[in-house]
Amino acid sequence: MEPTRQLATFIATAPIEALPPSMLHEAKRTLINLLAVALSASMDESVPALEAWDGASGDEATVIGRGRTSSGRAALVNGYLAHLQDYDDTHFPSILHPSAPTWPAVLAAAESRGATGLAALGAFVLGAEAACRVAMSVHPWHYDAGWHITGTAGVFGGAAGAARVIGLDVEAATRAIGLAGTHASGVREAFGTNGKAMHAAQAAEVGLRSAVLAGRGWRGPETILEGRRGFWAVASPAGHDVSVLDGLDASMSRWELGQNGLKPYANGVVSHPLQDAAIELQERHGIDAGEVSRIEARVHPLVLELMNRVQPATGLEGKFSHQHCIAAALVDGAGHEAQFTDARVRDPLIASIRALVHATPDAAVAEDATHLEVTLRDGTTYSTHVEHATGSPANPMSDERLEAKFAALAEPVLGASRARALLDAAWHLDEASDVRGLMALTTSTTSP
Amino acid sequence: MEPTRQLATFIATAPIEALPPSMLHEAKRTLINLLAVALSASMDESVPALEAWDGASGDEATVIGRGRTSSGRAALVNGYLAHLQDYDDTHFPSILHPSAPTWPAVLAAAESRGATGLAALGAFVLGAEAACRVAMSVHPWHYDAGWHITGTAGVFGGAAGAARVIGLDVEAATRAIGLAGTHASGVREAFGTNGKAMHAAQAAEVGLRSAVLAGRGWRGPETILEGRRGFWAVASPAGHDVSVLDGLDASMSRWELGQNGLKPYANGVVSHPLQDAAIELQERHGIDAGEVSRIEARVHPLVLELMNRVQPATGLEGKFSHQHCIAAALVDGAGHEAQFTDARVRDPLIASIRALVHATPDAAVAEDATHLEVTLRDGTTYSTHVEHATGSPANPMSDERLEAKFAALAEPVLGASRARALLDAAWHLDEASDVRGLMALTTSTTSP
Repeated sequence: MEPTRQLATFIATAPIEALPPSMLHEAKRTLINLLAVALSASMDESVPALEAWDGASGDEATVIGRGRTSSGRAALVNGYLAHLQDYDDTHFPSILHPSAPTWPAVLAAAESRGATGLAALGAFVLGAEAACRVAMSVHPWHYDAGWHITGTAGVFGGAAGAARVIGLDVEAATRAIGLAGTHASGVREAFGTNGKAMHAAQAAEVGLRSAVLAGRGWRGPETILEGRRGFWAVASPAGHDVSVLDGLDASMSRWELGQNGLKPYANGVVSHPLQDAAIELQERHGIDAGEVSRIEARVHPLVLELMNRVQPATGLEGKFSHQHCIAAALVDGAGHEAQFTDARVRDPLIASIRALVHATPDAAVAEDATHLEVTLRDGTTYSTHVEHATGSPANPMSDERLEAKFAALAEPVLGASRARALLDAAWHLDEASDVRGLMALTTSTTSP
Repeated sequence: MEPTRQLATFIATAPIEALPPSMLHEAKRTLINLLAVALSASMDESVPALEAWDGASGDEATVIGRGRTSSGRAALVNGYLAHLQDYDDTHFPSILHPSAPTWPAVLAAAESRGATGLAALGAFVLGAEAACRVAMSVHPWHYDAGWHITGTAGVFGGAAGAARVIGLDVEAATRAIGLAGTHASGVREAFGTNGKAMHAAQAAEVGLRSAVLAGRGWRGPETILEGRRGFWAVASPAGHDVSVLDGLDASMSRWELGQNGLKPYANGVVSHPLQDAAIELQERHGIDAGEVSRIEARVHPLVLELMNRVQPATGLEGKFSHQHCIAAALVDGAGHEAQFTDARVRDPLIASIRALVHATPDAAVAEDATHLEVTLRDGTTYSTHVEHATGSPANPMSDERLEAKFAALAEPVLGASRARALLDAAWHLDEASDVRGLMALTTSTTSP
């Protein structure tokens, strides 16, 4: 069987009831994470322009934190919200962010068609597997060439997830993947602009649209991966690995969602071990930040290459300052978007602590590790060693910590009680007769 | 100045009043051609699914032949309709189809913002120039690699045309081009499916959306062409030619719309000289098709390589049969979509004439040329030599012939009087205070 059809067969026929419970649990965790970051992003000033850019309206689905619209617009805007803060999940083997292009397509399809919560969770597991497998098939050549893999491979996830919710058969799923895959797009030149999050947005919308149209009998290329003018040949001419698509089966032991990490901090992963360490010392010793006299860190050399900026001028620059990441973690005990505002970067206490950080590069320190030592004015010294940063596959974020992240991001938007209700709905989504109740809870203006 | 900014400066600042009248006339011709093919395509069974795929509605713009919707949906569906029959215009130096991705973005922007007819015509001239220049900058490497250039370079046309209608300044136009260019997509694997026309559709919608969002202050990559991870590096690694973007100025003597051909026949260009010849003999001699005993053709070798099929089974196969193209031209005096229906392919008279065609390959015959000889049962022989097929840059379709094509495609949808009114509105678009009257005339259900 050709690779594209192999993938479509898996998507269309794998029994949801045979999926491992651990993967359905992981699907819930990615959903909770996505709801949290999307809710936080829903307050961004760029959002209203996207929501209503062409005067379209609709009532098929929900934009997280905003309200009802067409299913296409919901997929688009939710994809944008999910990726806007670079705070979504990461599939470590391919550096694809699987949730942002996949969940919005699945949710919009499920909302508009009244699919059960379990059907949505299962479709996401399969869609994420499709996106990750396609991503792995072209990694690292494709990303190195300049493609943003979350936009390109992501469109396969959106199409696959939506195809499963809609209930496409193998033939239609093959065409859906083809209609979507021809629009794989997004280049890294757009990093640092609103365009980056649009890669995930577009992947979600095009994935959903392709599944809907394939279900209406539209013809699409049936060999989008392996074809002479298909995705592998055209978008990854330097190399691809077909074997990555082998062994797709509901009973397989390795699932790519098992290689997926949730970020505890709203900045690049290289400083995450430092933030883990600072928060750990703060929590263990109740450090009074005003009493700190010196901070010594031993770090992987990338930390200094990518994130050495003692006094950042803006919130965004703060995300690229390991000094700010450490200081904010010590003072606030967190590294959410709230720690990367312009105001927080200008805070005098945080600024003074940034100046006390001394980091030494050490090639013997792994990328997800660090040694941190904090000295107080009275000479007291506290130190710790982080072996694997939180959110790496070797040290997944706990459910409790995920709940704390969710609360920190969702409560300012929804209020504590509604946020709690939304979290409960997500944890129990497999028991829900549809996803509409969950989505309604994401807006503060409608009743559950 | 960097190439992307150079392009944006031209788009944003070239004075419409300085554009050559011949190019504004060419813009009207491309519009009339687009309206004709889109109206014909609007009857295709695939269209309703696309129009309403996600339950969105709106009232900002018009889908040709269908009705009102959001401006984004109008751009999408009109792009699809314009390219569905492969009957739209072709820019010969790059084989890009400039109207399908550009006009729908311009029209939707103009309709939703109340721009004048002249503003829309001028924006199209600039947008088409942008699309063609970007296409030429990567041709032939990019197409040879498997990209469908109408989708990829087309998105620059949609963005540029819409940016001009909206009135973006140079900064915003640069960002619009960047937000659009990162979504350049469409691979040739989708040829022969509904996915192909979606490349133009998506280019039009994404182009429009990018211009709208850039106008709302969205950040986009400002070096999408030349950037290290931009369009040239990522989507045309085998080569590109920066110099193609030089000399952009309203006073320049060469405009790419001058290299743009309108198709007289709804099939691939290689058999166009044969159809020209058959129609010429038919018109000159009033040949009774039932009396034909033999047809001899001398043709460029590609005709036999690509289009040798004596008895096609379907209308689509008929488009790839030079025998059918000749026979239908002799019997019907035309080569529109109506000559490529399953029924027309099965017509006994046409089938009998197909069997009489003898074509000889001759490398000395140019691609746009042919020699054709028709012999009747009584021994009478008529022959002609076509030097340049109609619709090639050396032999543009006349305004009269374009009007006949328009009538043949528009009248079955709109009726003769409304089609005539629409044609008049297009010829006088430069005098119109807006494009809304024109667009209203494309639907048979609303009043002008």
